[in-house]
Amino acid sequence: MVLMPLLDTSAGFAAQALTAVAELTTPVAVVDETVLERNLARMADFARRSGLKLRPHAKTHKSPFIAQRQLAHGAAGLTAATLHEAEVFADAGVTDLFIAHPPVGAGKRRRLAELAERGIRLAVAVDDPSLADGLPAGVEVMWEVDTGLHRVGSAPGEPTARGVRGLRPGRLRGLFTHAGQSYAIERALAAHQEWEGLAESAAVLRAGGVDVRELSVGSSPTAAWAAEAAAGGITEMRPGTYVFSDANQVALGAQSLENCALGVVATVVSAPERGRRVLDCGTKSISGDFHVKGLEGWGIVLGHPDLRIDRLNEEHAVVLGEADLKVGDRVVVIPSHACTTVNLHPALLFVGAGEPRWEPVAAHGWN
Amino acid sequence: MVLMPLLDTSAGFAAQALTAVAELTTPVAVVDETVLERNLARMADFARRSGLKLRPHAKTHKSPFIAQRQLAHGAAGLTAATLHEAEVFADAGVTDLFIAHPPVGAGKRRRLAELAERGIRLAVAVDDPSLADGLPAGVEVMWEVDTGLHRVGSAPGEPTARGVRGLRPGRLRGLFTHAGQSYAIERALAAHQEWEGLAESAAVLRAGGVDVRELSVGSSPTAAWAAEAAAGGITEMRPGTYVFSDANQVALGAQSLENCALGVVATVVSAPERGRRVLDCGTKSISGDFHVKGLEGWGIVLGHPDLRIDRLNEEHAVVLGEADLKVGDRVVVIPSHACTTVNLHPALLFVGAGEPRWEPVAAHGWN
Repeated sequence: MVLMPLLDTSAGFAAQALTAVAELTTPVAVVDETVLERNLARMADFARRSGLKLRPHAKTHKSPFIAQRQLAHGAAGLTAATLHEAEVFADAGVTDLFIAHPPVGAGKRRRLAELAERGIRLAVAVDDPSLADGLPAGVEVMWEVDTGLHRVGSAPGEPTARGVRGLRPGRLRGLFTHAGQSYAIERALAAHQEWEGLAESAAVLRAGGVDVRELSVGSSPTAAWAAEAAAGGITEMRPGTYVFSDANQVALGAQSLENCALGVVATVVSAPERGRRVLDCGTKSISGDFHVKGLEGWGIVLGHPDLRIDRLNEEHAVVLGEADLKVGDRVVVIPSHACTTVNLHPALLFVGAGEPRWEPVAAHGWN
Repeated sequence: MVLMPLLDTSAGFAAQALTAVAELTTPVAVVDETVLERNLARMADFARRSGLKLRPHAKTHKSPFIAQRQLAHGAAGLTAATLHEAEVFADAGVTDLFIAHPPVGAGKRRRLAELAERGIRLAVAVDDPSLADGLPAGVEVMWEVDTGLHRVGSAPGEPTARGVRGLRPGRLRGLFTHAGQSYAIERALAAHQEWEGLAESAAVLRAGGVDVRELSVGSSPTAAWAAEAAAGGITEMRPGTYVFSDANQVALGAQSLENCALGVVATVVSAPERGRRVLDCGTKSISGDFHVKGLEGWGIVLGHPDLRIDRLNEEHAVVLGEADLKVGDRVVVIPSHACTTVNLHPALLFVGAGEPRWEPVAAHGWN
């Protein structure tokens, strides 16, 4: 791990988090609002300079407050993963939403129609023309292209063009993709696959007279290639994790530790032997779902670069390594995966900008 | 996988779940109440016949309704993992609670005192005498013995006796352990380690005149050895997952698929190529935290033994294998890990006994 030199710069966050939580029981998810604001401003500025619209993926935070801050920083709209997220953000005043998940079934179409009736500008992910037929009037289609993740979507080029031609005229807004393979392969390669797959597909469609207005990419590890993407014809980016960053992003080299704005304060509850400590944060407070290859252990313990979170159970983290930590001491853990960690908490404690306060994770928990 | 012959027996659950959810959007967590009741009755009867008190671990369900059913079936009390769980279950009328986690810090001691003042009979996990000194009056200690998991606890025998002797007279109720290694090693071996570690420790203490009233074991994979444990002097068992079971328990051979009472109904949202389907359940609705060695994929798709849940993202499950499933079709997934799956849902839809109804997962989300 090359984290050592970076750790000192997070001492401010750790100190603020520990002070704010002093009177509370742990684990508690804490956000450094100063770092958060810096992350929001940096990405907004970066998108602007790259010539891309910014449509952040709000599944990372599920927070109306952060959604409003993203819009204040100039986001063109938000991306949501579920209808519930879209409804919560619409309630919070967001008027332009892309739901990056195929809206399958009468129930989801009904909820989409209700959102459309509220005057929200809406687009949804589709990779099958039959799904688009049942969409409420005014809801546009972002066709999903599979640029290497092999999850949802049609292959770039002619397969995508064939699918899009099955849509009724006027339905299509554009094409989108998510290069999730960027968590496993070289990031530069994933970034190229991402924008080239969209550009190739758009070229085939436009040659056939189809109006493709948006080309939208989105994966936090490939966000750094936004300018190259814009030069290749991409119009929009949808990063999510940049608001908080996390230990996976740090391990990938996509973010530095001082940009991590989300931590979980945990207490040492057992010191059974030298070199082993047990914290009261487990998979019900720091998620254990996703761990990139370069990350050692399930997160980063701020200020303790020699400690490794070896195992997580539901309410326990077993930490190995030599450290002067006794029962009752508290630490701040940067979780491996911010998006699923936030989803475990009813609210986040904001520190670093005025009095600590709670912000609800209002969009968590339903489909 | 040897699941094939068992799958037919779950057809009833799958059909009921799909009917109950027909008008709802997915993913939805569904409980077959008939199977749940059978599981509750079977374990209660098994504990009785084995000569053990039953103190189920309620972290699996976090549900006041199921807690009350466990007591109705004769449970001596409940086990909780967090203060929040204990508070919710106390509100639901549970009067005897063991919090199987060390209560570290002034905040947790204060909340414990509030519970004790309500007349709740309480015990807490301790593996360090200094923790016991600050406990509110009346709160007893269950000393944690490490019988092989190497998480919290002192080694069996003299190390445990030494620790326990540091407690003030009258604090100790007994010894407990959790043989979590049973998820990784031979179950019979883990069961022996579990009860022998406690019996050995109790023998040393009793030889020194210490009154050890309870010896409590608890791990779902070792529950089958309860009668042997009782013969070895164990007095109490704390299984958790038996209420629902899950795909991990099935893969371990600790439960059969027809005893699985928790499923997540998901919808096929994409069919990008032959042999690949994408469901709308991911790590935000079926947890991706824990997967035993014998389990192929992230759960079991009822009625589709040839399908394998190959990958989970937050709102997607990529399913590989040949099956006649088209976009819009729905399936029931038995999750790999029930406890963390339930924790992702605000409520569970109960089916199989009268009209479907929602039961809140009231104890989720806080520490």
